[in-house]
Amino acid sequence: MNNKTQITIKDIAKALNVSPSTVSRALKNNPDISEETRNTINKYAREHNYKPNEMAMNLRTSRSNTIGVIIPQFVHHFFSCVLDGIEEVASKAGYNIIIAQSNEEYSREVKIVHSFLAARVCGVITSLAKDTSRYEHYQELLDNNIPIVFYDRICTGVNTERVVVDDYAGAFAAVEYMIQTGCKRILFYSAPLHLEISKNRKNGYLDAMRRYKVPVDDSMIKICDTREQAIAITPAILESANRPDGFFAINDETASGILYSCKLANLKIPEDVSICGFSDGIIAQTTDPKLTTVEQHGKEVGESAIHLLIDRLENKNPEEKRSGNRIVKTNLVVRGTTK
Amino acid sequence: MNNKTQITIKDIAKALNVSPSTVSRALKNNPDISEETRNTINKYAREHNYKPNEMAMNLRTSRSNTIGVIIPQFVHHFFSCVLDGIEEVASKAGYNIIIAQSNEEYSREVKIVHSFLAARVCGVITSLAKDTSRYEHYQELLDNNIPIVFYDRICTGVNTERVVVDDYAGAFAAVEYMIQTGCKRILFYSAPLHLEISKNRKNGYLDAMRRYKVPVDDSMIKICDTREQAIAITPAILESANRPDGFFAINDETASGILYSCKLANLKIPEDVSICGFSDGIIAQTTDPKLTTVEQHGKEVGESAIHLLIDRLENKNPEEKRSGNRIVKTNLVVRGTTK
Repeated sequence: MNNKTQITIKDIAKALNVSPSTVSRALKNNPDISEETRNTINKYAREHNYKPNEMAMNLRTSRSNTIGVIIPQFVHHFFSCVLDGIEEVASKAGYNIIIAQSNEEYSREVKIVHSFLAARVCGVITSLAKDTSRYEHYQELLDNNIPIVFYDRICTGVNTERVVVDDYAGAFAAVEYMIQTGCKRILFYSAPLHLEISKNRKNGYLDAMRRYKVPVDDSMIKICDTREQAIAITPAILESANRPDGFFAINDETASGILYSCKLANLKIPEDVSICGFSDGIIAQTTDPKLTTVEQHGKEVGESAIHLLIDRLENKNPEEKRSGNRIVKTNLVVRGTTK
Repeated sequence: MNNKTQITIKDIAKALNVSPSTVSRALKNNPDISEETRNTINKYAREHNYKPNEMAMNLRTSRSNTIGVIIPQFVHHFFSCVLDGIEEVASKAGYNIIIAQSNEEYSREVKIVHSFLAARVCGVITSLAKDTSRYEHYQELLDNNIPIVFYDRICTGVNTERVVVDDYAGAFAAVEYMIQTGCKRILFYSAPLHLEISKNRKNGYLDAMRRYKVPVDDSMIKICDTREQAIAITPAILESANRPDGFFAINDETASGILYSCKLANLKIPEDVSICGFSDGIIAQTTDPKLTTVEQHGKEVGESAIHLLIDRLENKNPEEKRSGNRIVKTNLVVRGTTK
C-alpha cells in the first residue's frame, strides 16, 4: 500500500519552486526564511494536509517514541485496567504504544521481545507469562540499552524498575479479617508458585495464620487460579471430613467458582463458608452475595509503570535516585461473602 | 534514549573493512558476494546481535507494516475479546498493531486518527465512540489511501468494509424467546439510539414484539447501558402500576444491574421477571442465576476484521469481490434469568 496522496516536503518544494531545505526550515518557523515565504509554505502545507513523517523523523534522531507493552492476557479485568492506565499517560506524553499478548506462553513472550527489538522500541513495559521462568530475552533488551519496567508479575533476576501490587499486605489483611470473623480453617487457592505474586500472597496468608495461631500446612494450599478449575476441585474439598470454613483465592474469577460450588453444595455464604478474592473487578459486583476482595488498583499500576519508564527515557530520574520497586497499595473491600 | 549498542550495517562494514553495500548484500545472501565473505559477515552479525532496522526498511519501501486499532474501552469484555482476535492474526501475519483507546470520546478518536496518520500506519481497524456522529476524520484516512475496517459500532456514511455482529437477529431471537416463555411486557434498555448497534437491536426487539402482537411503544425503550444506570432507574420502574415482566438489555453489565434491582425488590427471577443480556462475557457466568444472553463472539469479530484488512493490504480481495459487510452470527444462550 503506497500512501501516494500523502504529500512530502519534496512535493511542497516542487510546487512552490523553492528548495526542500527551505520548506523544511519554513515548517519549523526558522527565522532565516522570510516571513512571507514561511507563510506561503505553511499555508500550502495546511491546505494540502501535510503531516510530518514520524518514521523519517525517528530515524534521523535514531530513536523511536514507541513503547512496547506486553500483556499476558487481554481478556482479563486487571490487565485491561493496567493497559488503560498505560495508554492514557503514554498518549498524553506523546508516545505510541505497541501492544502484544503473550497469552501466558514463554515462547510467545520471547518472540514478542525480538519483534520489539526489530521495531526499535525505546522502552518496554511487561508482566511475565505464567510459564516464564527464564529471562535471557529481557537481558537482551537491557544489553541493547532498552529500559524495561516490570509490573505485577515481576522478575527479580533482571536489574530493572518494577511496579508491584502490595500482594503480601493485601493477602495478610484478607486472611486476618477472615480469622477475626471466626474462620478456623482457611484454604488458599494460588497461581503457580514460581510467580512472585503467588509467593508474596502465600507469605501473607501463612503469616496471618501463624500470627493468630491458626493451624496451617502446605496441604491447605492448592494450585488453582481459574473459575473452571475451582468448580472442578472444590466439590470434593467441601465433602471432606475436615471441611474448610474459609477460602482465600488469588483472583475474583477463582473466588466466583468457589462461591458457585458452595451454593451447589447448599452451604450458606457467609454463614457456613467465607470467601475472599483478589482484584475487585466487575465480577466482584455481580456475584450474589457480592464478593469480598482485595482491591488491586490496576489502572494505578499501569500509570506508575509508564511514568517510571518515561522518567527514565527522558532522564528525569537519575540512577542514584531510582528506587527499584514502586509499590501500589491494596485495600480489603468487605462485601457479602465474608461475615 | 540512543540505543547505541544496537549495531548497524556501517559498524559491521567498518569492523570487517568492507563496504556497507557488501555487508548489506551479504546479509541478503546475494551470490555476487563470495561465500567466504558472506559467512564471515553473517557470523559477525550474529555474534554482535545485529537486527535489521525495521523503521529504515519501512521507510525505503514507503509503507509500514503497522496497523492502527481503535478500541472504545479497554476495560470491557467484548472489546478485549475483539483485541485478542486482532492481535493473534496480526502477529502471525507479521504485522504490528498500535492500539489506542478513544474512551468513548469523539475528540479523542479524532486525535488518534491524526496520530495514526503521522505514524504512517498501513491500515486502521476501528469501532465508533458512543458520542461520535461526525466522520470527517475517517474520510481523511481514506483520502490518504489508508484502508479502514469498522467493527461492531460501524459507520455507514463512510465507504469501507465492516464487520458487524448480527444484532438484529440476536435481539429478535432473545425477545421472541421471552415472549414464548410467557412475558407480556418487555422493556428494552438501549445504548444511545444514533449507534447502529442500538438501531439494529431496537428493530429486532420491535419486530419480535409486533410479530407476536405484543403491545409495544417508544416509552418502553430506555436509554440505559451501564450497571450503575440500571441500578438507578430500575427500582422506580418496578414500582410502577404497569410493572414489566421482562427486560432485554443491550449488554450483560446492564442486565446484571437489572437483576440486582429485581432481587432488592424481592422479585423472583425468572418467575416474576425475565432478564436477557447481550455479550456472554464472564459476568453472565457469575450472576446468580446465571444470565440468559446473546453470545456475541468478540474474538471472531476481531479475526474477521483483521483478515479483511490484510486481504485488502495484500490485494487478495479485488474491489469487485468485496462484500461490504461481514456478519458474525449471534446465538441465544438460555440460562437461569429466563423461564
